Amino acid sequence: MTSPLIDRLRSLLPPDAVVTEPDALAPGGQDMSRSAPSGVAAVLVRPRTTEQVAEVLRTADELQVPVVPQGARSGLVGAAAAMEGAVLLDLSRMDRILRIDAVDGVAVVQPGVVIADLQRAAAAQGLFYAPDPASADRATVGGTIATNAGGMRCVKYGVTRDAVRSLEVVLADGTVVRTRPATAKGVAGLDLTSLIVGSEGVLAVVTEATLALLPAPGPSRAVAGTFRTVADAIAAAGTIAAGPRLPSTLEFLDGVALRGVRIVLPEIPLPADATAWLIAVTDVREGAEEDLESFAAAFRDHGAITVARAEDPHAVEDLFAARRALNPALTAVRGGATHGDLAVPRSQLPALVEGAAEIQSRLGVEISLAGHVGDGNLHPTIVFDPSDAAEAAAARQAEGELLALAQTLGGTVAGEHGIGTLKLDAIAGELAPRILELQHGVKAVFDPKGILNPGRKLGGI
Amino acid sequence: MTSPLIDRLRSLLPPDAVVTEPDALAPGGQDMSRSAPSGVAAVLVRPRTTEQVAEVLRTADELQVPVVPQGARSGLVGAAAAMEGAVLLDLSRMDRILRIDAVDGVAVVQPGVVIADLQRAAAAQGLFYAPDPASADRATVGGTIATNAGGMRCVKYGVTRDAVRSLEVVLADGTVVRTRPATAKGVAGLDLTSLIVGSEGVLAVVTEATLALLPAPGPSRAVAGTFRTVADAIAAAGTIAAGPRLPSTLEFLDGVALRGVRIVLPEIPLPADATAWLIAVTDVREGAEEDLESFAAAFRDHGAITVARAEDPHAVEDLFAARRALNPALTAVRGGATHGDLAVPRSQLPALVEGAAEIQSRLGVEISLAGHVGDGNLHPTIVFDPSDAAEAAAARQAEGELLALAQTLGGTVAGEHGIGTLKLDAIAGELAPRILELQHGVKAVFDPKGILNPGRKLGGI
Repeated sequence: MTSPLIDRLRSLLPPDAVVTEPDALAPGGQDMSRSAPSGVAAVLVRPRTTEQVAEVLRTADELQVPVVPQGARSGLVGAAAAMEGAVLLDLSRMDRILRIDAVDGVAVVQPGVVIADLQRAAAAQGLFYAPDPASADRATVGGTIATNAGGMRCVKYGVTRDAVRSLEVVLADGTVVRTRPATAKGVAGLDLTSLIVGSEGVLAVVTEATLALLPAPGPSRAVAGTFRTVADAIAAAGTIAAGPRLPSTLEFLDGVALRGVRIVLPEIPLPADATAWLIAVTDVREGAEEDLESFAAAFRDHGAITVARAEDPHAVEDLFAARRALNPALTAVRGGATHGDLAVPRSQLPALVEGAAEIQSRLGVEISLAGHVGDGNLHPTIVFDPSDAAEAAAARQAEGELLALAQTLGGTVAGEHGIGTLKLDAIAGELAPRILELQHGVKAVFDPKGILNPGRKLGGI
Repeated sequence: MTSPLIDRLRSLLPPDAVVTEPDALAPGGQDMSRSAPSGVAAVLVRPRTTEQVAEVLRTADELQVPVVPQGARSGLVGAAAAMEGAVLLDLSRMDRILRIDAVDGVAVVQPGVVIADLQRAAAAQGLFYAPDPASADRATVGGTIATNAGGMRCVKYGVTRDAVRSLEVVLADGTVVRTRPATAKGVAGLDLTSLIVGSEGVLAVVTEATLALLPAPGPSRAVAGTFRTVADAIAAAGTIAAGPRLPSTLEFLDGVALRGVRIVLPEIPLPADATAWLIAVTDVREGAEEDLESFAAAFRDHGAITVARAEDPHAVEDLFAARRALNPALTAVRGGATHGDLAVPRSQLPALVEGAAEIQSRLGVEISLAGHVGDGNLHPTIVFDPSDAAEAAAARQAEGELLALAQTLGGTVAGEHGIGTLKLDAIAGELAPRILELQHGVKAVFDPKGILNPGRKLGGI
C-alpha cells in the first residue's frame, strides 16, 4: 500500500516502524471496551525516539491526517481505538526507564514503560510508584498519563496526575517541548503539565515523563468483612473515611458481585446472608495494628457478619481474591456484563445506592455497584443475558440512568476510565457550556488543525 | 470622583463596596515585596457575593478596564499590586467557611477565608488542611490558590494545587462556572482546575473553593542539628530525602542566617563553629520514635556538631524559633535583605551551594541559602547595607545570577512565590518559547480582551 502519507513516513522512519498490512493494523482497532467506535487506520507507526514521534506529527499536521496515540490499548472508553484513515502512533517501543533517583525521588521514563515494570524497578531501590490501576501489568506510563489513571490506592496516594512532575511532549506540529522543570515545587508557568495529564491524546503526545516516587511503604495488612446489607457496608466505609486513620485501599462488593464470586470462587467462605463485602488495607510502617483495629471496629459497629484480618501481604492477597475476581464473577452471573465507571462525593454513596435500587426495580435489571468506595468511585455493572435483546437494551438504558444519577448527586460520569468516544454524550450533564467552550478553545491553541485524536475526550459542543 | 466605570459600579454594588477615596485606595497599591511596579487604581471594590464579582467583571470587560484580584496582598512578586486605572477587586469580605464535611473530606470555602482560620476550623473536627504557607495567619484561600502557595509541609503533603478539588470561578466576561464536580476522582474534562491554580489572577477569579482535608496527623516531633559546613547539612538532608522515612518538614539555615539568629535571638544555643542548621519534623501517629532516630542518625552520619530532639509540639516550636526568625535575622545582619525564591532538583543542591559561593566571592556579596531544603526550594537572600548604593547594586546582580544558576541546574526561578511582575524577565530562561506561546494562547481563550491582571504572570513574549 502506498500514498503520499505512507511514502513520507517510510522516508522518515526505519522500515519496521511503518506498518500498513491490514492484518498487522487490525489489532490496533480496538481497546478493552471491545465496543468503541473505530475505523480502519491508514498506517501504524512504531517510533523508538522522540525525534521519530516529531517526524510523524510534522507529517500528519502538514497533510492534515488524524493521529491516534496508542499504548497498551487497555482503556475502556475508546480513546485509543483506531480511526478511519488515521496514523496509529504506537508508543510501546519507547519503553526505557531512563533514570531512577532516590535523592530527587523521581523516575524518568519513556511512555511505553509498563506500570508494573516501573513499580518493580522503583521497589528494587526501596522506592514506590503509587499509581496502581487494575491493568498495571499491561497499561503503560503514557496511557495512564493520557487517562489520568486511578486504581486501588488513590484513597491514600491520589491519582496519576499527583505523581507527574514534568513531561516532554511533542505538539501537533512536531515541536518538542518540556512542560516545566522537574522540581518538586515550581510556579513559573501555568500548569500545562496537569492540563496534559488526562487529556486522552487530544493536546500533545507524551514522549518522556518525570514521575514522583515515594519511600516504599510497609507491608500491606487488611481487614475484610461481610455485611447483611449494602447500606451497612457503605456506612462502615463512611465511618472509616471520616475517621482518623486513612486506609491505603478501601474496596467494596455488593450482593450481585458476591453471587458471581460464589460461582467462580466457591472456595471463598461467604456467609449465606452476606450481600456486601468490604476490605480496608493499611500499608503504614508503624501503627498497622491500630489501623486494623480501627477499621475492624467500624465494621463491627455497622453490623458486620464476619470480620477477617490479614497480617501479611500474602494473606491480604487471599482476602483480595474476591475483589480481583470481580469482572469474571460479574460475567458469570448472567453471561453479559457492562463496564461502568462513575464517582460521587462519598457522602452521596447512600443516595446512589438507593437510586440504583430504584432504577433496578423499575427497569427490571440487575445492577452491581462494586468499586473503589474509598474514593466514591464505583464501577456499576449491569449483568444481563446477552442473547436476550430486551435485557441488553434495558442494561444500556440502566447504564445511562446511573450516569445521570451520579451527576444529579454532584458526581461525574468518568471517575477514572475517561471519556473517549463512549461517554461524549454524557459530559454536558456535568460541565457547564462555558467550561466545554474553554476546553475546545484550549484544544485549538494546542492543535489548531485538529489532528490529535479528533472527536474524542471533548464533548458537548 | 466619578467616571462611567465608577457610576456603573455604584449602580450595581452596595455603597460601601465601591471605594474611590485616594487614602482608602492607597494601601491596596502594594504587596509584601514593597517594591513591585504599581500604579494608581481607579476604584477598589469589595464584593460579598459571587454575583457581585460577576457584575464587576461584566462591567470591566465591557469597558475594557483592567482588574486586579486581591486577597491579603501578602504576595512577594507584585501579582496583586495596584495597576494604573484598574479595578482593585478585593475578595477579603467573602470570608465564610460554608461547609466542612468529614465523610467527603472537604471544606467548601469562600476566597477571603484566612488559611489559619481554615486550619483551625478543620482541626476542630479532627481534620487537617495541609497547605501551610509562612503567611498562613494572613494569606487567604483565594490568594494561595492564585499563587499555588507552598510552605513548610510540602515535602510530605504537596502544594496548594494538591488540595484543590473544584473551583467556582467568574470568567473575565462575568460568567460564573464550576470547573468540575467535587469528587475525589474525576476525568470528565481537561484539568482546568489545576490550570487556574497558580495562574495569579490572569485566567479567572475564584469565588468558592472545595478543598481536600485529611485526617489530623499526630503531634509534631522533631530533630534539629548544627553542622560545621553547609555541605554537611545538605548531605544530611539528601540522606533523609532518599531514605525510607518522609519528614513532614525539612528546613535549613546557613551560616549567614545563623549570624542573624545570633543577633536577634542570642538566647538560642548555637555552637561557635556552626555554619549550618537543619530541622526534620515528623507528624506520624505511630513510629515517631523510629522517624526521629532515623533523622538523627543521618545528622550524626554527616558530622553534626549538635543533635537536639523535641518530643512534643511546644518543644518543636522552641527548636523552630531559629527558622521562624529567618527574615528579621537576615535583616539584622547588614540592615538590608533581598527576598529570594528558587527551586532545584534536590540532587542539585550541592551544585547550587557551590555556585552560590562562587557568585558570592566574585561579586563580594553575602548570600544566605536558607529554606525548604526538603523540596529543593530555597529562599536565597543577599544581605547588604541599604545605604551603600554599590552594595545594593551588587545584591541585585547576585539575585539575578542565582536565578540563572537555578535554571542551569534544571530548576526554576519561582519555587512558590510566583512570577507577578518581578520575575517576568526570568521566565524565558526555563520555559521554551512554544510553552510561553501556549500559555498566552490559553490566556486569550479565558480572557480575550485581556482585562484580568494584564501583563503579569505570563512573560517571555
